[in-house]
Amino acid sequence: MIRVGLFGFGKTGKMVAKELLQDDLIELVWVMRRNVISEEKYASRLIGINENKGMIISKERLTHSFYEEYPVDVIIDFSDASAYKNYAIPASKGIKIISAISHYSPKALEYIKDLSHQTAIIYSPNITLGINFLMVISQILQKIAPNADIEIVEEHFREKKGISGTACKMAQILGLDEERHVNSIRVGGIVGKHQVIFGLQNQTIRLIHESISGAAFGKGAIFAAKWIVNKQKGYFSMEQIFSDMIQQNIPVY
Amino acid sequence: MIRVGLFGFGKTGKMVAKELLQDDLIELVWVMRRNVISEEKYASRLIGINENKGMIISKERLTHSFYEEYPVDVIIDFSDASAYKNYAIPASKGIKIISAISHYSPKALEYIKDLSHQTAIIYSPNITLGINFLMVISQILQKIAPNADIEIVEEHFREKKGISGTACKMAQILGLDEERHVNSIRVGGIVGKHQVIFGLQNQTIRLIHESISGAAFGKGAIFAAKWIVNKQKGYFSMEQIFSDMIQQNIPVY
Amino acid sequence: MIRVGLFGFGKTGKMVAKELLQDDLIELVWVMRRNVISEEKYASRLIGINENKGMIISKERLTHSFYEEYPVDVIIDFSDASAYKNYAIPASKGIKIISAISHYSPKALEYIKDLSHQTAIIYSPNITLGINFLMVISQILQKIAPNADIEIVEEHFREKKGISGTACKMAQILGLDEERHVNSIRVGGIVGKHQVIFGLQNQTIRLIHESISGAAFGKGAIFAAKWIVNKQKGYFSMEQIFSDMIQQNIPVY
Amino acid sequence: MIRVGLFGFGKTGKMVAKELLQDDLIELVWVMRRNVISEEKYASRLIGINENKGMIISKERLTHSFYEEYPVDVIIDFSDASAYKNYAIPASKGIKIISAISHYSPKALEYIKDLSHQTAIIYSPNITLGINFLMVISQILQKIAPNADIEIVEEHFREKKGISGTACKMAQILGLDEERHVNSIRVGGIVGKHQVIFGLQNQTIRLIHESISGAAFGKGAIFAAKWIVNKQKGYFSMEQIFSDMIQQNIPVY
Repeated sequence: MIRVGLFGFGKTGKMVAKELLQDDLIELVWVMRRNVISEEKYASRLIGINENKGMIISKERLTHSFYEEYPVDVIIDFSDASAYKNYAIPASKGIKIISAISHYSPKALEYIKDLSHQTAIIYSPNITLGINFLMVISQILQKIAPNADIEIVEEHFREKKGISGTACKMAQILGLDEERHVNSIRVGGIVGKHQVIFGLQNQTIRLIHESISGAAFGKGAIFAAKWIVNKQKGYFSMEQIFSDMIQQNIPVY
Repeated sequence: MIRVGLFGFGKTGKMVAKELLQDDLIELVWVMRRNVISEEKYASRLIGINENKGMIISKERLTHSFYEEYPVDVIIDFSDASAYKNYAIPASKGIKIISAISHYSPKALEYIKDLSHQTAIIYSPNITLGINFLMVISQILQKIAPNADIEIVEEHFREKKGISGTACKMAQILGLDEERHVNSIRVGGIVGKHQVIFGLQNQTIRLIHESISGAAFGKGAIFAAKWIVNKQKGYFSMEQIFSDMIQQNIPVY
Repeated sequence: MIRVGLFGFGKTGKMVAKELLQDDLIELVWVMRRNVISEEKYASRLIGINENKGMIISKERLTHSFYEEYPVDVIIDFSDASAYKNYAIPASKGIKIISAISHYSPKALEYIKDLSHQTAIIYSPNITLGINFLMVISQILQKIAPNADIEIVEEHFREKKGISGTACKMAQILGLDEERHVNSIRVGGIVGKHQVIFGLQNQTIRLIHESISGAAFGKGAIFAAKWIVNKQKGYFSMEQIFSDMIQQNIPVY
Repeated sequence: MIRVGLFGFGKTGKMVAKELLQDDLIELVWVMRRNVISEEKYASRLIGINENKGMIISKERLTHSFYEEYPVDVIIDFSDASAYKNYAIPASKGIKIISAISHYSPKALEYIKDLSHQTAIIYSPNITLGINFLMVISQILQKIAPNADIEIVEEHFREKKGISGTACKMAQILGLDEERHVNSIRVGGIVGKHQVIFGLQNQTIRLIHESISGAAFGKGAIFAAKWIVNKQKGYFSMEQIFSDMIQQNIPVY
């Protein structure tokens, strides 16, 4: 069993907690929540599971002695861009860290990379299997078909502001100007769809990822936890992990 | 320059010839056509190019002395399932062979494999870049996401009979029962569309190939010709070539 | 304000109740639930709304005197194929009825049609705006382009059994053999997607409906409630309503 | 039989001529071509049909006496924005006119409308069945679902300049700012794809038109010719015709 401590219990955090609680190889030991209301004791209860799992704690409790009393193997962070300030203690104890925060300042990123000399850390702003698979195979296809024109189309719910961070990262990885080559559709309640279109003179290839619910982030985090638990040290990205997996799973004829 | 001899000048053969004639690194030396009408002398003229390129010849002329008089580096075969009987002479001379025939009998395939001790041979029933890329990455994704449900949808023009050979091969490669998991749409004039759908609980991945015109086969054949020209001997498939290319183009972080 | 009584509080019923509670022109007076547990008093509380709305009642309470004490204008039924047996009392009082049940026996349907001499009744197995719009315009396009080949593709989550009822109805309306022309994709967690493909020789038209969540049924029910509240008597289908709406909204040049 | 005179024999004009020559109810009497080369006598020969149909003529021959010697019922114009100057003579003879020119100056349009007091004229920059169907039903859906967010995505081959005229017209008809709501994809060799996306909170509706070849314009022109041949006078658009057809084909329940 992999013992997990979760940072963050917002909308996505709750869906991640639910996935963690349902996985046979994961034990959700505790959940750090920003605003702890006294009467809540267990994350499980708050998401409608009739058990006492995932003790709710406040940020203040994350001391050395807490980690000794309630040890975990991996920390998964879906909270916010300031929570990295709590990484030093677990890193010093060799606890692995998975950060799924959207944006960090360069300074924060530097700090996190420094900690990766003490433990293994994954940082990924979009931790789903599908998106990371798309990122890697899009790069491969671009190399195989260098003449292909490439466009990215991303569709999300009306209220989503700005270009999707995932689409931006795809554009950057493929060397595309995001102003010109990312097309953002904002309509109704679309959860999230990313499409990379490769156009050749006589054929078109479309690589499409559709999110059904935010629970996909939980699945990605579980995947990452199982991957990182046996690593010692180092700084990793999800694309890198998928790149390795693709390498290892290329069919041999 | 790669000197090419083309077998076949039907609907697809003509489109392939056109692509070969327009490629800067290919010289189309001759075209073997089933029914040679005396007045036609050059493939180029028959496809509206105002030059004398790609001398039209009949099957009977494919003798040892012909290959010495009109030498080529590669033979590309878009004719029919019997033309492999003309492979022995070029194979004995080390001329590389690319066969893009849809179906061979097991016996024919055995014969072709035997010849690959003398020269390099590629056999591929669907030689387009996009389809072969899809075949390989679908296999990879299946290994990475073994819980995903997989369905294939293929769409073609009304008159196309039976399940698409490409979709059958995809199903076979992915270990799917083609009766249950290949969905064939036959409507109007759709040139050809193949979709592999990977369904996970919270996300869906769609890998889609759309053909715009049969000229994509020409591009695939050119790609194969450039790949095989420096090989010595051996029997290759396009999936194998793409598998190698993917291997070599995996991004490193 | 339209006063509504809801039959059914299962998975879909809850989503419908939530939509009803949030609509400014609807008042959810009560909800009939199969298994009433004593401690639950209000539907609002059970779906996380901090108010007392939508009193929970059992089937046994649906008497004449109940309807006098807790009057409603419209009944919306998302329960099961037996609940129509409770339609007689409200019908006799001129309360409008919207039935969104998937399948009825011919006998049940006959009974319901009889009641429509006393009040206005809508019966629709798929009450969403999008699906009904698609059904009507597909019929129109079929008449305008009688040579078009038509195929239906429906995609749903892995566990969904049989062909989608909606796709069957589409096939029936378009005179297509459902065995041959409905293609069912069952993968992962797809909520629901229906595609009608019209193929002509030189062009393809695709009419696609994608469900994001079951709440779309609630929106459809609200739409139907607002439509039916001013009708006196008669038996209506959603296609019929949409057919009329399309008629009234055809652009004039 | 409807006797047709065609203006224009460029890339699209040729495909239109081919469709006209193959239709059982159409007789292509002559084709007006900008640059007439003496040796060419029949459009049929130039597109590989082994008959003498569609005499090739120059603009200069379009006199009163020519129309008497080679009478037609309908003129179909796929030439250029200046050819309307040749409409006066046929209009005075009651010959119907179908103009499929992309853009006219306001002055030219005024002139054409004036001629419609003498004969029936259709002007349509995109004459395909599918696009016109989409235009009308998009307007209907917008009225039925006024809260839906609408976006247009158009995909074309790399070289196509500017936003597609068809997408612009769609945006205009739907009251959408074309800068913000039309997304243009330019990749490879895509013939033409237009998608109108209607996003609601819980469902998405996609209306998609894919062109397979320019021959769709020929089919649209034939459709228009059959429609206009029995009209007397007046100025019509294809949307208007489709609007009427939709009106007449609404299913009755």
